[in-house]
Amino acid sequence: MTKVKNAFYAQSGGVTSVINASACGVIQSARENAAHIGKVYAGRNGIIGALTEDLIDTSAESDSAIAGLRHTPSGAFGSCRYKLKGLGENRAEYERLIEVFKAHDIGYFFYNGGGDSADTCHKVSQISQTLNYPIQAVHIPKTVDNDLPITDNCPGFGSVAKYIAVSTREASFDVRSMALTSTKVFVIEVMGRHAGWIAAAGGLAADENNDIPVVILFPEVEFEQQKFIDKVQDHVEKSGFCSIVVSEGAHWPDGKFLAEQGTKDAFGHAQLGGAAPVVANMIKDALGYKFHWAVADYLQRSARHIASRTDVEQAYAMGKAAVEFALAGDNAIMPTIVRTSNKPYAWEVGKASLADVANVEKFMPAEYISEDGFGITESCREYLLPLIAGEDYPPYKNGLPDYVVLKNVPVGKKLSEGFKI
Amino acid sequence: MTKVKNAFYAQSGGVTSVINASACGVIQSARENAAHIGKVYAGRNGIIGALTEDLIDTSAESDSAIAGLRHTPSGAFGSCRYKLKGLGENRAEYERLIEVFKAHDIGYFFYNGGGDSADTCHKVSQISQTLNYPIQAVHIPKTVDNDLPITDNCPGFGSVAKYIAVSTREASFDVRSMALTSTKVFVIEVMGRHAGWIAAAGGLAADENNDIPVVILFPEVEFEQQKFIDKVQDHVEKSGFCSIVVSEGAHWPDGKFLAEQGTKDAFGHAQLGGAAPVVANMIKDALGYKFHWAVADYLQRSARHIASRTDVEQAYAMGKAAVEFALAGDNAIMPTIVRTSNKPYAWEVGKASLADVANVEKFMPAEYISEDGFGITESCREYLLPLIAGEDYPPYKNGLPDYVVLKNVPVGKKLSEGFKI
Repeated sequence: MTKVKNAFYAQSGGVTSVINASACGVIQSARENAAHIGKVYAGRNGIIGALTEDLIDTSAESDSAIAGLRHTPSGAFGSCRYKLKGLGENRAEYERLIEVFKAHDIGYFFYNGGGDSADTCHKVSQISQTLNYPIQAVHIPKTVDNDLPITDNCPGFGSVAKYIAVSTREASFDVRSMALTSTKVFVIEVMGRHAGWIAAAGGLAADENNDIPVVILFPEVEFEQQKFIDKVQDHVEKSGFCSIVVSEGAHWPDGKFLAEQGTKDAFGHAQLGGAAPVVANMIKDALGYKFHWAVADYLQRSARHIASRTDVEQAYAMGKAAVEFALAGDNAIMPTIVRTSNKPYAWEVGKASLADVANVEKFMPAEYISEDGFGITESCREYLLPLIAGEDYPPYKNGLPDYVVLKNVPVGKKLSEGFKI
Repeated sequence: MTKVKNAFYAQSGGVTSVINASACGVIQSARENAAHIGKVYAGRNGIIGALTEDLIDTSAESDSAIAGLRHTPSGAFGSCRYKLKGLGENRAEYERLIEVFKAHDIGYFFYNGGGDSADTCHKVSQISQTLNYPIQAVHIPKTVDNDLPITDNCPGFGSVAKYIAVSTREASFDVRSMALTSTKVFVIEVMGRHAGWIAAAGGLAADENNDIPVVILFPEVEFEQQKFIDKVQDHVEKSGFCSIVVSEGAHWPDGKFLAEQGTKDAFGHAQLGGAAPVVANMIKDALGYKFHWAVADYLQRSARHIASRTDVEQAYAMGKAAVEFALAGDNAIMPTIVRTSNKPYAWEVGKASLADVANVEKFMPAEYISEDGFGITESCREYLLPLIAGEDYPPYKNGLPDYVVLKNVPVGKKLSEGFKI
C-alpha cells in the first residue's frame, strides 16, 4: 500500500461553467479515497498559488459545499493566465514548486485547463525524472474552445455550445417577428479565436422544425466580403430575415481579424471593438437592412443556468477519472472522452499521454463546414447534438441561481521565503 | 345576450419572451367563451395586418399549439413598429380599419404592446364614437422597458430582469476567477433607452451571500466620468474586480449617449457602436485594467429559457383579463398588475383607462437609486425581487427549447382593394 500523500489541484486559463464540476469530481473522489490521498490543497489562482505557497485547504469545506461546486460556474479557487517556462529557461520555478510540494507533502498534481495548461502539467510531470521529486501529474481537460486533441470533445464546450444554440434560436425568433418593419439582420459574436467549434453551435438553432437562416463566419474560413453579403441578401429576400454568427476569430484573407477595423474614437485613439458591429455595419452599408448585434463574451462561458447535462457529467467524470488514474500510478496523462456511439450517443473515459496533448490545437475539420463556408454539415450536427443534450439546472433562491461561494481557508505557510511571480 | 363577434389580436413594437403568453391567454379565454367570441383573427405583423387585411385564422391552430405559445418567445404572429396617426391627420387609416373590421365581423380589438401601442389602441377605441363603428378596444401591456404608468410592472420586464441579474452574477463569478492575472473589469450593456429598470436588475447579482461589486450606469443619472472611474478603482482595489452594468441610454450631462462617441472606422465612416466598449475603453485608458465586455441586445428580451415564472403568469393573466373585460363591456382600457403585498408578494388584476396610459413613461424613482447614483436601494430590491421569482422552463427537444411555430393560415380576403402602408 502506498503512503498517503496530499494532492494539489488548480484551475487554469479561461474558466467555464463546468470547471468546478471537475473540481467536485476530484475532491469527492479524493474524499472517498482517504486511505491514499490526504488533503486536497487547491492553488489560489492556479499555478501561482503553488509558486507563492498560497494554498487553500479544501478539507475546511463541507460535503454540501463541495457538492455545490457541481452546479457553480467559474473557478471557485481562482484561475490564472500563467505558463511555466521550460526547465532550462526558468529552473527556479520548478525548484520552488518542489519546495512547496515537499513542505506540504504533495504527491499528486491535478491541473485543470486547456492547451497551455496541458503544457504546464506536462512540464511538472517531468519533475520526477529531471529533479528527482516523486509526483504524479494528471491534466484535467477544460476549454470552451473544444480545441484539445485526442479527446472527442472538451468539458466546458458543450455548455457554451448549448448557450449559443439556444440564444441564436431565441434571437432568431425575435428578429423574425420584427423583420417586416424593423430589424432584418441579427449578428451574434461568439468566442473561439482559432477554432470555430462555438460558432458552429449557432448552426444548431435551425432544424427540421425551425427554418432559420443562419450564416456562420468561422475562423477556419477566410472571409470573402461580397460572397458574404450576397448570402445574407439571399436569405433576407427568401425568409425576410437572417441571423449571423460571427466568431471573434473571423478574419480577412491577409489574416487580419474582422474586429480590427482600425477604428478610432473622436480623440483618434484606436478602439477595441468587436467583430459583430463590424459585420453589422457592413451589411447596413451594402444592403441598407436594419440590424441588431450582440456580443456574448463572458456570458456564454459562465452561463451555468443553461449548462448541458452531458457536459456537466463529463466534466465531473474527468475530475473523478484523474484521481483514479493517479491512484493507479499514472503520470503525465490526461483523461479523455471517447465517443463509442453516435446514435444513441455513448461515451467512456479514455486516457491520453500529455506528450501528445500539449501544444496541439484541434480545428473544425473541413467535412464539418458546408461547401459555401457559411454553415455546418450533417456530420457536424451529429457530432454537436449529443454534446448539448440534457439540462442540468442549478437550484434557485430568490429568483437567482444559488451558486456556492467557498470559504477558501488558507493553508498555513511552511516556507520562510516568498516567491516573486 | 350579446351577438357573437370575432376578435382581432395583434402584437406591436419590440417583442418579449412572454408576449406570446399573453396571446395564449387571449386565445384560450376566447375559446372558452365561444358563446360570445367567434374567431380570433391575429394581425400578421401587428396593426399592419389589419390595415392590409392580412389576417391569420388562429382557429386553424390546435389547442396544444396555442398552449405552446405560453413557453414560446417573440411574436408568433409578427410584430411591427407602426404608430397610427391621429384621426384628423390620417382619416383613411381609420376608415380602412373599419372596412376590415366590418368585412370580418370584428367587434373586439386586442392590442398587445407598450406605450406607443397603447396610443394606437386608444385611437382605435374611439372609433365607436368618432366613426360610429361599434368596437371594444383593450390594450394588453407588454414592454421589457417596464415604463408603462399605473400598472405596478409590465409583462416582459420580469424575464429580462431575471436574465440580466443571472447573467451579471454569472459573469461576475467569471471575472472574479480571472482577476489576479487577467480581466479585472466586466461590462455588460443592457436595454432601456430612457428608463433604467433593466439596468437596475443587474444590481440583484449581489446579495447577502454574493459580495459582488456592481456599478450601474442609469439613463436617469447624468454620467460623471471621473466619479465613475473613481468608483470602479475603489471596487477593484477592495475586491479585486468590478462588474459594470451600463444602460444603452446612459448619457453625458449634455444628453449625448455614451454610445455616440463619434467613432469612425478606417474609411472615416461613422461607426454605430455600443456603450459597453466605450465604457470599457474609458476604464482601460484611465486605470489600465484588462476588461471584457458584452452586449446582450436581443438575447435579453428573447431569453425564454430563463423566463421569470411570475412574469409568465402575469403575461398570461393580462391576456385572459383583456378578454374578460371586453366581455364585461369595457372599452379603451388596459388590464394592470396591482401589487397588494410585498412580503409575501401578492398581486391582482386591475384596470386602467387608456387615456391615462397612452404616451406616459414611468422612470426609476429617485428613491430606487442609491445616493452615489451607481446602485440600487433596498426599496428597489424589494420592488424587483418578486418580479424575477420562479422559473418556468420550456420543454426541450434535442438539447434545444421546443418552441412552437404556428401555421399562421391566412384568412381569405373579403375586400377588393388593398391598402398602401
